[in-house]
Amino acid sequence: VASIDLNSDLGEGYGIWQLGDDEALLSVVSSANVACGFHAGDPGIMRRVCARAVADGVSIGAQVSYPDRDGFGRRFIDMAPGDLADAVVYQIGALQACATVSGGAVRYVKPHGALYNAVVHHEVQARAVVDGVRALSAGLAVMCLPGSALLRAADAAGLPTVAEGFLDRGYRADGTLVPRTEPGALLTDPDTIAARAVALVETGHLDAVDGSRLRLTVASLCLHGDTPGAVAAATRVRAALLAAGHTVAPPAAWA
Amino acid sequence: VASIDLNSDLGEGYGIWQLGDDEALLSVVSSANVACGFHAGDPGIMRRVCARAVADGVSIGAQVSYPDRDGFGRRFIDMAPGDLADAVVYQIGALQACATVSGGAVRYVKPHGALYNAVVHHEVQARAVVDGVRALSAGLAVMCLPGSALLRAADAAGLPTVAEGFLDRGYRADGTLVPRTEPGALLTDPDTIAARAVALVETGHLDAVDGSRLRLTVASLCLHGDTPGAVAAATRVRAALLAAGHTVAPPAAWA
Amino acid sequence: VASIDLNSDLGEGYGIWQLGDDEALLSVVSSANVACGFHAGDPGIMRRVCARAVADGVSIGAQVSYPDRDGFGRRFIDMAPGDLADAVVYQIGALQACATVSGGAVRYVKPHGALYNAVVHHEVQARAVVDGVRALSAGLAVMCLPGSALLRAADAAGLPTVAEGFLDRGYRADGTLVPRTEPGALLTDPDTIAARAVALVETGHLDAVDGSRLRLTVASLCLHGDTPGAVAAATRVRAALLAAGHTVAPPAAWA
Amino acid sequence: VASIDLNSDLGEGYGIWQLGDDEALLSVVSSANVACGFHAGDPGIMRRVCARAVADGVSIGAQVSYPDRDGFGRRFIDMAPGDLADAVVYQIGALQACATVSGGAVRYVKPHGALYNAVVHHEVQARAVVDGVRALSAGLAVMCLPGSALLRAADAAGLPTVAEGFLDRGYRADGTLVPRTEPGALLTDPDTIAARAVALVETGHLDAVDGSRLRLTVASLCLHGDTPGAVAAATRVRAALLAAGHTVAPPAAWA
Repeated sequence: VASIDLNSDLGEGYGIWQLGDDEALLSVVSSANVACGFHAGDPGIMRRVCARAVADGVSIGAQVSYPDRDGFGRRFIDMAPGDLADAVVYQIGALQACATVSGGAVRYVKPHGALYNAVVHHEVQARAVVDGVRALSAGLAVMCLPGSALLRAADAAGLPTVAEGFLDRGYRADGTLVPRTEPGALLTDPDTIAARAVALVETGHLDAVDGSRLRLTVASLCLHGDTPGAVAAATRVRAALLAAGHTVAPPAAWA
Repeated sequence: VASIDLNSDLGEGYGIWQLGDDEALLSVVSSANVACGFHAGDPGIMRRVCARAVADGVSIGAQVSYPDRDGFGRRFIDMAPGDLADAVVYQIGALQACATVSGGAVRYVKPHGALYNAVVHHEVQARAVVDGVRALSAGLAVMCLPGSALLRAADAAGLPTVAEGFLDRGYRADGTLVPRTEPGALLTDPDTIAARAVALVETGHLDAVDGSRLRLTVASLCLHGDTPGAVAAATRVRAALLAAGHTVAPPAAWA
Repeated sequence: VASIDLNSDLGEGYGIWQLGDDEALLSVVSSANVACGFHAGDPGIMRRVCARAVADGVSIGAQVSYPDRDGFGRRFIDMAPGDLADAVVYQIGALQACATVSGGAVRYVKPHGALYNAVVHHEVQARAVVDGVRALSAGLAVMCLPGSALLRAADAAGLPTVAEGFLDRGYRADGTLVPRTEPGALLTDPDTIAARAVALVETGHLDAVDGSRLRLTVASLCLHGDTPGAVAAATRVRAALLAAGHTVAPPAAWA
Repeated sequence: VASIDLNSDLGEGYGIWQLGDDEALLSVVSSANVACGFHAGDPGIMRRVCARAVADGVSIGAQVSYPDRDGFGRRFIDMAPGDLADAVVYQIGALQACATVSGGAVRYVKPHGALYNAVVHHEVQARAVVDGVRALSAGLAVMCLPGSALLRAADAAGLPTVAEGFLDRGYRADGTLVPRTEPGALLTDPDTIAARAVALVETGHLDAVDGSRLRLTVASLCLHGDTPGAVAAATRVRAALLAAGHTVAPPAAWA
């Protein structure tokens, strides 16, 4: 039996607008990547998600982003590294206050959208994110793809790191994700997704799209929740893991 | 001899745009009301002002505002109290992170512009601001006009309070400020302003516009800095207080 | 038989976030109040709604708002009249361009949310809105409650006016709407709403909540669409009017 | 004797914040690139600049930008082409309304900052900008560097084009600008700048940084105004051109 973290993006509504089913996901995951107002979220949503996460025993992470509500943080922005580090500090701080008033605390940081994709390989922006996190606290963990520039920079800075895997995304043989524009990029069948979760946890391996066997060392599994089917799949993943005798819990990095 | 706090609004630029002379004022005041990004300021400006404030031994306060960059926070917004409290939490948290990375900490909260004017008498918004501050920390002080709804609410909630006076604004006999649209609202002569500062500190009294003598119990004096003349006046106030043997230092509430 | 306009708020999503069912409503109404980016909407949504409106033969109106995406334009903002007039000009112009590229044109202006509520009685803001509209074009109609300050100001400025009625809101005997916090404020039964529409068109009268008979002279009926049931009700209203032999078409003011 | 256009970026303040000296520059230039609210500017500033431009006989152009007030439009954003085209339509429309209420009209479009730099070579974004402009009007001219992807796309779409030169920037032998990080990138001496203007107008040539002679066919000269010295230099350029018998006037593309 093993212990594995399940994480999901939460609090991605804004003002009157809703996105995803925060309540449903908070009963499934062990870690919540909470939007901090730069791509989604606002003070009220952040506080409510934090309050619910604390009540459900779910860990709180800062889902930091480029400042881009118009584009939901999905567009690369060529920010100067100093500006990016400061933006990371600001977002974590804002969420930390929302967590504090809810009786919780921010445990980790995970970039969102285009920033996530950038810091997988963009060394300068990866270091900028780490600079922001590290300046604030040496105890904050950083979550990203295994082997990413971000986790390398975090490790070099002495920050705890958490590698994550994606159950609903296809992998190439080299461990990178299949781009969304290519076949096999997205998996939607709940049974398949749940089976992959159990297999990955038990064997440390996942089948790549070309049929080859991929070694994947991850401490957390990312579950998406912005479609109705995704919530059902997430629920299924948790149930399958528990049924197989495993534990769903935050990683040691912040448990 | 007495000890008095001098406070000023700082960090009120935004992006490429500058406003006021932050560096000059930081060498004059003992407390900096730092804008938190809702009416002015951005992560980079906030961090730089905090860093300089820490270097200069100046206390850091959160200058919280309605979310209104378009109007510089000078327009009343009929926010729901819960939303206002959450906005206060968010702003303080963001500034707290900027202060932390600079080796400092947020000591107090002062509303800005239209929110300031509102919470002098608007009981619901005053309580909302206090709710936000109190939920975050029982140690944060609240700064406003003596006798304001905000200070009453803060006091009732057990928060430290700091009453402030305005040296460059005319007072009515009832202790309220002369509206900017009326004669006597603004004082600009540095000698007059400095003389008022010394007189207020030594006697606890100020002359109202109608010539009557006004009792004013304040622990801090607000100096404006968004005009060149205002910086000169602020410098003059500090010099006059020191020359008279007084001390310029943060109030006991957060010193 | 009579001809009546049906209008609805449209294009109130923002970026990734959706609100209401624009397509469904565009097949029901004869006039579309399109959000202009200040409380909701963005360039892409505006262009797409305009394109569809033109294709469906639906008139395009500018749903102008305070600048307040955070609060969906539902919070009063104490804007200076000059700023408000300029904001109205900007929003109409932005929508006009989106209409132009779609082969259409903006025919009328209707305030949104808190601005709507304000200009029913707030003479200064009502005149400011009219000043903005009138400066841009003498041919743009203005839509609001019958007897509102806005329609009076528009009429005085020589602008065409269109009074509208609300089918899903209760009326007081004096012709004002029952506040949402009071009983009878909202009607949800599609049959009742459709019957009110036909009765109002045929008799010019509506029953107020106290049972008294209210004379209501309106050229347009507002249908809400931000709930699933509201779309069904809107569809029902149109069908009932057509079944009774009436015509659903834009008012003469801009047809 | 020749006729040459002088253009400058104007209306780049925002809310309370000012940038540059709009009034001084409007008495120097023949064409005003007016910010449209996406990187700078707001409805009030746009209307005031338009009113003054009309009064001074200065042509009005839309200075369109990425949506990025935080970064003053100086950061590349990887916008989808459709979103960029829609953003261009929105901005031109908003400015067109401000121009209309001032008795003027938008004559041309010039990208700002990072968008300008992108569309010099980024074919997809260049076509997107042209798509937006062309959908709105076949009569709007497009201004950019000679030989840029933007002017090629505009020309292919049948739009009038205006090539511009920079007097205060060094050129490489291939006609591109010396990057700001390299020596010779910026010229600041008013005499030198004015002499370059007259030489360029009279000979069609400019000296590159390596001393080679560069052929430069431009219909407009860009003058910067966001520093005090730049305004003086701009004034000097105009005076030198007039003293040499030339005319300062908008290009034929929109005169």
